[in-house]
Amino acid sequence: MTGAPLPPGAETVVPVEWTDGGLGEGAVRGMRARSLGPEGATGHVQVYRPAEARAHVRAKGSDVKAGDRALEAGTILGPPQIALLAAIGRGTVRVRPRPRVVVLSTGSELVQPDTELGAGQIYDSNSFALTAAARDAGAIAYRVGAVADDAETLRSTIEDQLVRADLVVTTGGVSVGAYDVVKEALSHVADEDEAGSGIEFRKLAMQPGKPQGFGSIGPDHTPLLALPGNPVSSYVSFELFVRPAIRALMGLQDVHRPTTRATLTADKALTSPKGRRQFLRGTYADGRVIPVGGAGSHLIAALAHADALIVVPEDTESVEPGTEVEVVLLG
Amino acid sequence: MTGAPLPPGAETVVPVEWTDGGLGEGAVRGMRARSLGPEGATGHVQVYRPAEARAHVRAKGSDVKAGDRALEAGTILGPPQIALLAAIGRGTVRVRPRPRVVVLSTGSELVQPDTELGAGQIYDSNSFALTAAARDAGAIAYRVGAVADDAETLRSTIEDQLVRADLVVTTGGVSVGAYDVVKEALSHVADEDEAGSGIEFRKLAMQPGKPQGFGSIGPDHTPLLALPGNPVSSYVSFELFVRPAIRALMGLQDVHRPTTRATLTADKALTSPKGRRQFLRGTYADGRVIPVGGAGSHLIAALAHADALIVVPEDTESVEPGTEVEVVLLG
Repeated sequence: MTGAPLPPGAETVVPVEWTDGGLGEGAVRGMRARSLGPEGATGHVQVYRPAEARAHVRAKGSDVKAGDRALEAGTILGPPQIALLAAIGRGTVRVRPRPRVVVLSTGSELVQPDTELGAGQIYDSNSFALTAAARDAGAIAYRVGAVADDAETLRSTIEDQLVRADLVVTTGGVSVGAYDVVKEALSHVADEDEAGSGIEFRKLAMQPGKPQGFGSIGPDHTPLLALPGNPVSSYVSFELFVRPAIRALMGLQDVHRPTTRATLTADKALTSPKGRRQFLRGTYADGRVIPVGGAGSHLIAALAHADALIVVPEDTESVEPGTEVEVVLLG
Repeated sequence: MTGAPLPPGAETVVPVEWTDGGLGEGAVRGMRARSLGPEGATGHVQVYRPAEARAHVRAKGSDVKAGDRALEAGTILGPPQIALLAAIGRGTVRVRPRPRVVVLSTGSELVQPDTELGAGQIYDSNSFALTAAARDAGAIAYRVGAVADDAETLRSTIEDQLVRADLVVTTGGVSVGAYDVVKEALSHVADEDEAGSGIEFRKLAMQPGKPQGFGSIGPDHTPLLALPGNPVSSYVSFELFVRPAIRALMGLQDVHRPTTRATLTADKALTSPKGRRQFLRGTYADGRVIPVGGAGSHLIAALAHADALIVVPEDTESVEPGTEVEVVLLG
């Protein structure tokens, strides 16, 4: 039993260790009490020690009183909060649902892992990584996989997904070029008769992740973020733009990754292009950050060993070892 | 496109911004190049600026070379690690699966939330809270709910669950008393002919959480932890014993919650029973910890507002405000 209410008429609780357990053995002194056994069985128990009134009895309302506010709005429901809701009999509460995020990568050159690479092909990694990242951020994530560079195929694929999407994330096809069909496809999905619809494509002053698209599509103005296709670019873009969007949809106050200051530990100065905020991969520990790999947006192995992003501001072209830098902790 | 391999015979990549895009417009000087358009289309492009050999071309193996160790054994597969595995074409890898944890609470007095409480009844909160806590620890958790205090029902319920359990967690029925049928039930589930099977019940020198059972049951020696039934006792026991077990099954090195030292901030001294290590609920911030609620193991509301456990050692009976104490961060 887990602490049942005191039965009607009872006044105190006597530990079984203070009794003969109702077996009539060894009870040489003390009081007699009515035993409340299972299934209403009655009998007699020898009690060896006096028991104070209301000993081991918890007053009704000593945990939560009727009318108390049990939990503030906006509370994240972890195990203890769920315990409290159940304990006061609330089987259902209104919550913000986890947003449903559809992830698709674009590119006719993409093939699935565990297949043979043909000439001019590479493996799709973005759809796997960003689906995992969306789950990690708290979303229910659906991986659609790689869609070929064909505007009509892409348009119909995205339209099909809108029914289960609170947010759509695409990778690839956002920079300037003949293959960049995402722009073309999205211009047809967007409902341009409605205010607030449509996808904008911009070059942001950052590296990696310069080309980005964002806006809303379809009859419900579903938000869409179109990320660049290079694996590191798409991951960094996800961290900076998609993760906060998912957490905002979840109603969280704190949507951004924590940042800290750290001392750069490196053999040589970091270089960064003028006019672009650079996000380099690094490992952080004890107030120091060490860069891993280079600036190349194809360096997935380095990313896989990083746990932080080193931020180099737009107006900085070189950072000497020993300098204090801003660091985004990837947790 | 996301950075496709260089087509055979090609030597460099020319940004489309440096060309007329194959449209023959405005190209007054510069070289001519073969355009590699979609679907093998060919044509001519005017290039305005000289392009160095292998500009924008990434050398094969510049990310990971054949024979490199991509990830160490024991690595937790987050989004970047999944990106790396996909990028090198590994569609499947051997991983430790999330352990399957079956949670059931015991007690004939327990009813489900959103139903009317009868005389002598309370709401089941443990099965909900510990299922959420098991998921939070990384497990796949199954909530069986409340089982009545009947040894035969409990035994058959647990036996039914063994097929999907890597770990069984029960609450209630572990202290001394007429209703404590968990011990009786588990003695029949345990396969006593096999070495290493069977559940031991012990009184631990801690508060809350004194009575605990642990061992293994059934033909596969499935580990079982029998926690006390009071909501705070069961949650604290889960944090101290079940969560590390789940994380050990997941192959993690770091199975315990982080601990820190903090200054006790309180109006009066904390008291603690001699000979028992006490775990009081508190809120931690900036090196200070404030107790919330009292020591009562029924105080779920305080637990729901806590984010730390204050540890009072066995040999300490009183802790003055301002003293440095050990704190378990519940994160």
